[in-house]
Amino acid sequence: MQKIQDAMAIIVQKFGGTSVGTVDLIRKVALRVKYEVDQGHQVVVVVSAMSGVTNQLIEHIHNITTTYDRTEYDVIASSGEQITSGLLALALQNIGVPARSWLGWQIPILTSDTHAHGKILEIHTASLLQDLKKGVVSVIAGFQGLSSQGRITTLGRGGSDTTAVALAAALKAERCDIYTDVDGVYTADPRTVSSAGKIDQIAYHEMLELASHGAKVLQRDSVEFAMRHNVRLRVLSAHAERPSGTLITGDHEIQTSPQAIRGVAHTLQEGQITLKGLPAKPEILTLFHEMMKTAQIEIDMLTQDLLPCGRLMDCHFTALKAELDRTEEILKLSQKKLNFYDLLRNNNVAKISIVGSGLKYYSHVARKLFKKLAEDHIKVSLVSCSDIKLSVLIPANETEKAVSALHGIYELDDKGKR
Amino acid sequence: MQKIQDAMAIIVQKFGGTSVGTVDLIRKVALRVKYEVDQGHQVVVVVSAMSGVTNQLIEHIHNITTTYDRTEYDVIASSGEQITSGLLALALQNIGVPARSWLGWQIPILTSDTHAHGKILEIHTASLLQDLKKGVVSVIAGFQGLSSQGRITTLGRGGSDTTAVALAAALKAERCDIYTDVDGVYTADPRTVSSAGKIDQIAYHEMLELASHGAKVLQRDSVEFAMRHNVRLRVLSAHAERPSGTLITGDHEIQTSPQAIRGVAHTLQEGQITLKGLPAKPEILTLFHEMMKTAQIEIDMLTQDLLPCGRLMDCHFTALKAELDRTEEILKLSQKKLNFYDLLRNNNVAKISIVGSGLKYYSHVARKLFKKLAEDHIKVSLVSCSDIKLSVLIPANETEKAVSALHGIYELDDKGKR
Repeated sequence: MQKIQDAMAIIVQKFGGTSVGTVDLIRKVALRVKYEVDQGHQVVVVVSAMSGVTNQLIEHIHNITTTYDRTEYDVIASSGEQITSGLLALALQNIGVPARSWLGWQIPILTSDTHAHGKILEIHTASLLQDLKKGVVSVIAGFQGLSSQGRITTLGRGGSDTTAVALAAALKAERCDIYTDVDGVYTADPRTVSSAGKIDQIAYHEMLELASHGAKVLQRDSVEFAMRHNVRLRVLSAHAERPSGTLITGDHEIQTSPQAIRGVAHTLQEGQITLKGLPAKPEILTLFHEMMKTAQIEIDMLTQDLLPCGRLMDCHFTALKAELDRTEEILKLSQKKLNFYDLLRNNNVAKISIVGSGLKYYSHVARKLFKKLAEDHIKVSLVSCSDIKLSVLIPANETEKAVSALHGIYELDDKGKR
Repeated sequence: MQKIQDAMAIIVQKFGGTSVGTVDLIRKVALRVKYEVDQGHQVVVVVSAMSGVTNQLIEHIHNITTTYDRTEYDVIASSGEQITSGLLALALQNIGVPARSWLGWQIPILTSDTHAHGKILEIHTASLLQDLKKGVVSVIAGFQGLSSQGRITTLGRGGSDTTAVALAAALKAERCDIYTDVDGVYTADPRTVSSAGKIDQIAYHEMLELASHGAKVLQRDSVEFAMRHNVRLRVLSAHAERPSGTLITGDHEIQTSPQAIRGVAHTLQEGQITLKGLPAKPEILTLFHEMMKTAQIEIDMLTQDLLPCGRLMDCHFTALKAELDRTEEILKLSQKKLNFYDLLRNNNVAKISIVGSGLKYYSHVARKLFKKLAEDHIKVSLVSCSDIKLSVLIPANETEKAVSALHGIYELDDKGKR
């Protein structure tokens, strides 16, 4: 019984922009889809725009206006995926695999009305399931949906991953395979740490922390969605002959031996702001949080230092560098309200994060990090942690040294060789 | 009263691929739209793909397969117009003109299910009219519609002109302005006859004959549609400062002095086929016509010559060169049924046509043509005519000489200087 069910499983495959960057690559993708079809699976494919296409369209937009209507932005930006979906459907038909393209509005994939940042609300699967039963591969334009106003929406960066995961959830797919240009999730960025190794299996919440703190292979949103809907995610290379990739699942499925730390992530995308000498009152922090929320600025690593006088504090936090100008402006406009006497800013920082369930159980795991960084004379300016993640802010020019050192002390170097 | 009505008139403006070929040109188009808005008009704009875009997409398709599914072809080929519609909407908003883009499926523009050659069946105008009343310019992606199956269709070559004319009819527009890269309809192709002049006004049926016989400025389908629905068409330059163009209307509106011949058209797109020694029976010709109809091959200039024996005939006709291989193949497969003994083919021919109401009333107008061609030693192999058109087939290398000569004898040279 089990075997028959497996054979009829629905598999969602997602191919990113570099995997469908040319017509020749699209033909190769078609063969990979055919492979799953030949295994007896019902296959749904989600495609991105051919690499470069969307950027060129956005350049056109910027050449017209910088303060653009996001509704029209979506009409333009969604066309790249439309093209790829048609081309891949043709490439599949050409090798004898029945296939048809689907656009977001045709399925439909209903989203919020927040253009350029749509959230998937509902997917009508009836027509897709009908096609799948007939043995027709559905080739779906990723990144796009339909608003309540009947307009095209897009899902924001990495949106095609989200499309794939949401479809896998809606179709109760056996697995969602994200094909990309790397062969899986690594213990650290291989461009920074040459001994970094591929992780075979990792739990949703660990992957979520890695993705949130610098691992670029998957968007945080899609991992979160997969976790919430229990979609088995696989990240694998579109170029490898027989890719094995990284499987991202619930804790219970993880078969590899438990490891204290699963990986080291880093990001140079954030900058630090310090507000000097605020009144040490809860109302002030509440006001600060409300201001940031209203402005939709995501802050991280928030820390307060009570000054010796006991009535004032310094307040430190990080935010995306792209948002720092805006953040500074908003805070300076409210200097009287918040009652701080100075604002300092530091762009030359890196956030290094270690992620793993070990942090939850063993206090020495965290201690090791601080000991090592002190030995190596790397100054830590801010610290923040969750159950399974510990982040430190250090000088940007120490990034490689710190990541490599931590990768070493948590025995991740070995992992790469296995 | 009349004035108020005029001021509220709906104007449809259509811009072709070269008029929207770059972002800078799109910005210029926006100014031209604004000009009509500033006159108090309600404006609907139809756009083509930026020049080169659709060809590149079709090249992608051909690199995958030559025998493609036209349903997917339409998904791909329709994306160029989608992009332009969004960009022009942004460019209009940027100069303070409220605007939004509309795709074929959003309006919807319902078409036949004949993919890549869709015919417009119905246009739902309610939403457009609502927007127009609010003073919002509708920027519509041309060339596309929606099939009864909910798939995207395209309308075939020149389809954006048809979109514009159909919209003008459905919206009861005051005028449909087709902006292109020439400043109107000419008495002959100016690249062939340097003294050719712009025609200020011309009747639908005359324009239809010119378009059917080689004048490339407008597609025959869109002129036919305009005639059937009495849409006042204007062809004008997108690049000129104050374009006057050519107005195409019903006979009753033509104010210029009547002229025997309005223009000389020519085409090198057709080739000649001769079937030798067919039985001179009506059944044979009926069978031949049915075969061509089934194969969707449009034939032109069909002529039969009864041979001296009285029982056999030679049959000559022309068809598009692009279709000649297929035509020859179909005929040869039926050689026994049609009972001809040989098939001759001539690709080196040109069809020259004179068009004008004068042909209907004065027999000397036609005689002049044959006299002139004979004087100039230009051999006429086939002749065909309608009420207001006379076409002759001549050797291709005599094209320029013949067109110039006819342009001269019908006093069209003067027209250009006025």
